[in-house]
Amino acid sequence: MGMMRNIKLLIEYEGTNYHGWQIQPNGITVQEVLQKNLAVMTRQRVRLIGSGRTDAGVHALGQVANFHTTASIPLEGFHRGLNRLLPADIVIRSVEEIALDFNAQLAAKKKTYLYRILNREIPSAVHRNYSWHYPLPLDKKTMQEAAQFLVGENNFASFQATHADTGDPVREVFRADWFDDKPPFLCLAIEANGFLKKMVRNIVGTLVDVGRGKVSGEEFKRILEAKDRRRARMTAPPQGLFLLKVDY
Amino acid sequence: MGMMRNIKLLIEYEGTNYHGWQIQPNGITVQEVLQKNLAVMTRQRVRLIGSGRTDAGVHALGQVANFHTTASIPLEGFHRGLNRLLPADIVIRSVEEIALDFNAQLAAKKKTYLYRILNREIPSAVHRNYSWHYPLPLDKKTMQEAAQFLVGENNFASFQATHADTGDPVREVFRADWFDDKPPFLCLAIEANGFLKKMVRNIVGTLVDVGRGKVSGEEFKRILEAKDRRRARMTAPPQGLFLLKVDY
Repeated sequence: MGMMRNIKLLIEYEGTNYHGWQIQPNGITVQEVLQKNLAVMTRQRVRLIGSGRTDAGVHALGQVANFHTTASIPLEGFHRGLNRLLPADIVIRSVEEIALDFNAQLAAKKKTYLYRILNREIPSAVHRNYSWHYPLPLDKKTMQEAAQFLVGENNFASFQATHADTGDPVREVFRADWFDDKPPFLCLAIEANGFLKKMVRNIVGTLVDVGRGKVSGEEFKRILEAKDRRRARMTAPPQGLFLLKVDY
Repeated sequence: MGMMRNIKLLIEYEGTNYHGWQIQPNGITVQEVLQKNLAVMTRQRVRLIGSGRTDAGVHALGQVANFHTTASIPLEGFHRGLNRLLPADIVIRSVEEIALDFNAQLAAKKKTYLYRILNREIPSAVHRNYSWHYPLPLDKKTMQEAAQFLVGENNFASFQATHADTGDPVREVFRADWFDDKPPFLCLAIEANGFLKKMVRNIVGTLVDVGRGKVSGEEFKRILEAKDRRRARMTAPPQGLFLLKVDY
């Protein structure tokens, strides 16, 4: 047994075949697969702390997690060993040692999500697991204008999951911008100090109704201000959502 | 029974779960799935003629195929009906009626392929089925210079599959250009009046050795001129290859 160490992982995963990040009884999750492989490597029980949950089908290019261990495996050994053991849809991008009191969930200062909409009439075979196929025309300009109401410190209760855990629904959104990514892709980049459960997907589902002309920018603002989940529109599907990065 | 019609399909597919385009005894293919569903719709046996084969794991954004039928189903009915019946990894992008003597294989004038290399040390979870992960640095400039030897009418026997069908190995390459697609992706766009079996993958495998400095531009030229498959280097893996379009 060596000294206690705290190891920080930067993780990419495709969410298609997982029931999300967080361990749960009814399906395999990314956290579970990682913990099991860490236990194999370290021959210790490992408790992996992620920056936060992602839903089933949601992807991550830059999820962050940490775990404590007394195993003396070098960082490069963790990195190569994990990538050898893990299935191809989970990849460790980097491994570093960090202060013992670092907690990937509690220390997160900012998260950036990307939501991708495939905005053309015909669905895509190649992009089906990495975008929301939305076949009707969308007005990007009104979606961008409405998205600006999100920026700042707000109570986002209107955009949290229907049966979300209670808790403070106030978050600060630093940026919410729609941009074209090789049309016909229309993407939202959104940065905040934290996100409520399903917040990005509920925002996107409602902003798409803005883009369709069914909800005006002013109505979008009132939906936000209502702090009432029943006011928001549909939840956009998970496969368009990517956790891009977590800043500490 | 109506009049004989010739229907042209524009098809997108993800090749990951198929043994290529062409019907074969030992695995499910894209042609087979399409033919079966066309037979269900038309209640006739259908012979689908593709512009050409693609290997197992290779993708297509713009494969073209045609079939003759006396079924009186409207074009829009074929389009919607097929997309409803087909698995999500095969999508019909458009359907049109075309002259009875049109043959998607024989009439093809130009094909465009894209090959995507993920050029970074760590593999990708999300892009693993849509790129070749190549972890070592590549010199794009020398790869681009060498690729210019391909342009023009050449005997490409050096780059055909080892046990390829015999036949005329002369093809005319109109363009072969490497470009960055959001680094760390490095892509080759190559257009020709036709391609030999595994030609793009053998070219890419050899050009990567140029990019590594293992084969000089002059040697690449001599490999092409040797008209001898044993001279080329490794065959790049299929999942980086996309049939972008076929021109008629």
